[in-house]
Amino acid sequence: MFQDKNIPKTPISDIGEFELIKKITQHFKIRQNKTILGIGDDSSVLDFKNNQTLVSSDMLVEGIHFDLAYMPLKHLGYKSVMVNLSDIYAMNGKASHILVSIAISNRFTIESIQEIYKGIETACKNYNVDLIGGDTTSSTSGLIISITAIGYAKKNQVVLRKGAKPNDLMIVTGDLGGAYIGLQVLEREKAVFNVNPQSQPDLSQYSYCIERQLKPEARKDISSILSDLKITPTSMIDISDGLSSEIIHLSESSKVGFILYEDKIPLDSEVTKTCEEFKINGSIAALNGGEDYELLFTINQKDYKKIKTSPSFSIIGHVTNDINDRHMISRLGEKIKLEAQGWNSTKKTY
Amino acid sequence: MFQDKNIPKTPISDIGEFELIKKITQHFKIRQNKTILGIGDDSSVLDFKNNQTLVSSDMLVEGIHFDLAYMPLKHLGYKSVMVNLSDIYAMNGKASHILVSIAISNRFTIESIQEIYKGIETACKNYNVDLIGGDTTSSTSGLIISITAIGYAKKNQVVLRKGAKPNDLMIVTGDLGGAYIGLQVLEREKAVFNVNPQSQPDLSQYSYCIERQLKPEARKDISSILSDLKITPTSMIDISDGLSSEIIHLSESSKVGFILYEDKIPLDSEVTKTCEEFKINGSIAALNGGEDYELLFTINQKDYKKIKTSPSFSIIGHVTNDINDRHMISRLGEKIKLEAQGWNSTKKTY
Repeated sequence: MFQDKNIPKTPISDIGEFELIKKITQHFKIRQNKTILGIGDDSSVLDFKNNQTLVSSDMLVEGIHFDLAYMPLKHLGYKSVMVNLSDIYAMNGKASHILVSIAISNRFTIESIQEIYKGIETACKNYNVDLIGGDTTSSTSGLIISITAIGYAKKNQVVLRKGAKPNDLMIVTGDLGGAYIGLQVLEREKAVFNVNPQSQPDLSQYSYCIERQLKPEARKDISSILSDLKITPTSMIDISDGLSSEIIHLSESSKVGFILYEDKIPLDSEVTKTCEEFKINGSIAALNGGEDYELLFTINQKDYKKIKTSPSFSIIGHVTNDINDRHMISRLGEKIKLEAQGWNSTKKTY
Repeated sequence: MFQDKNIPKTPISDIGEFELIKKITQHFKIRQNKTILGIGDDSSVLDFKNNQTLVSSDMLVEGIHFDLAYMPLKHLGYKSVMVNLSDIYAMNGKASHILVSIAISNRFTIESIQEIYKGIETACKNYNVDLIGGDTTSSTSGLIISITAIGYAKKNQVVLRKGAKPNDLMIVTGDLGGAYIGLQVLEREKAVFNVNPQSQPDLSQYSYCIERQLKPEARKDISSILSDLKITPTSMIDISDGLSSEIIHLSESSKVGFILYEDKIPLDSEVTKTCEEFKINGSIAALNGGEDYELLFTINQKDYKKIKTSPSFSIIGHVTNDINDRHMISRLGEKIKLEAQGWNSTKKTY
């Protein structure tokens, strides 16, 4: 509903697939010296020297993971890359390459596909990542984007979900809940638009929340910040499904418990305000929302001094020795059991 | 139509996605010492030491690339892996890992997804490949399988599409056209079945062609055979779109011409016989068919003696110095221009 309707509309059948691939990939540059061979052969060739290689895949399906009524195609391309890079950053790695496969129904034009790839290209530029392969194909209905992200890390730098130890501190980057409440704003505007297509919504007061939903940024910066602080986390995960669900993942992998303090959960003031408007508890948005693509990790207590003044991090709790002890201490001092009410129960990466 | 209809039918909603992932991945073993960490974290961790890494992605969409009317789900899983491994073998590399993302509509049951993964697992076992990641998600319609294949090769072993030189010999592995004519048999049987669902077709006389279509094998063996013969091809590609189209790819990448001899194109006797039945020229099936997943490559003439008696290879032509000189010399001695009438114009990997 917020898209420019004046762009030309050329059916894909006008040029054929080889020409389309040329069109959409011609602006992509190779930035990584690890890329020996990019697009154009049976496979790409990479050289990671002495590093370990990190690989992760994610698939986004129209009508399940995104709604083109309010998701501009360029943003969709950008966000699809973020979702994938985030998994590499969650290993304390550096993302370097992506492969993008897209299935599109014939309702999409050449220009609309170019829009998606413009977003992908911007993401590649901003995150210093090379597009090195993929696939374009017809779909019988809708749009599906499948991305594989590749990165690297030195052997002793990789941080897994397992590794958290009792008494470790639990840390989160940035702030939470914005993407979830941003989605509520967009869903409301879509409902208004469906009733009155002439409505001109003023969404400026929700700009942060909407941006968190439509154009999230993966935390490329964190591994460098931690490295500068000489901190290696003991465990790490990215927040795609909501804080609660991610804490449970760390708990299960590390075989430890977690105590989370509600009053420590970082919330942006716009998020708090918008949550109030929607009569949603901000903590609930953070716990069960998801799609914030922040990082959740644990550190040894000895690193507390190094981290306590950093503006990038919030200490939100600590690790206990009982795997069944997964609780939040509420503002009122109640002990509430954390449950996995993930963001999106229709989608799970393995 | 050839599937067992007696397997139980449990809706996916009965167990939820985490349980489903556990069910489908529990039988997979880690076989590669290059796999430091497989499924279960934000990304997998691989270590290729001094090798270069090869990566390729391919997407298969129901109704575009496969028809479940005659494609058993187990075969579909198997073939999806073959299509992807073939791209690694086409670089003269060794395939080692796959990531599999699947989008499924709610008409699929747990058992049907398990069938797909059984095929994937058999492929992993037969080809010594580890499943190290992926995604399962809902789709609004149909089944989509997106696979990323990863492999490796020593730096000086990688063979690209570019590199063919004038006077090189053009070689193909195995035989061609079988997958295409196998598809014609299956399409005919589907039409018969639609008219008379009680028909019990005897397809034994087409067993090779049907197997080429439903359960192709990627040429894992070729890089070892070539290595034993001390041959490094000058260029290589896999035959997914038909011989003609692949020759043109090598020609464009290497900036050379190719002369192909029709009487040298290897055809299995069952393929020739079935082509006659369908009134299709066997050479046309090989040239424009595709999906054979054989390898096409060029070698320096000095290697002729090493290869001439090998049963794995057919010398089918040679390289010329004029990029526009892409011709087939027919059985009648005519010079026919090769055109890219690929197998499947709706799908192009980049």
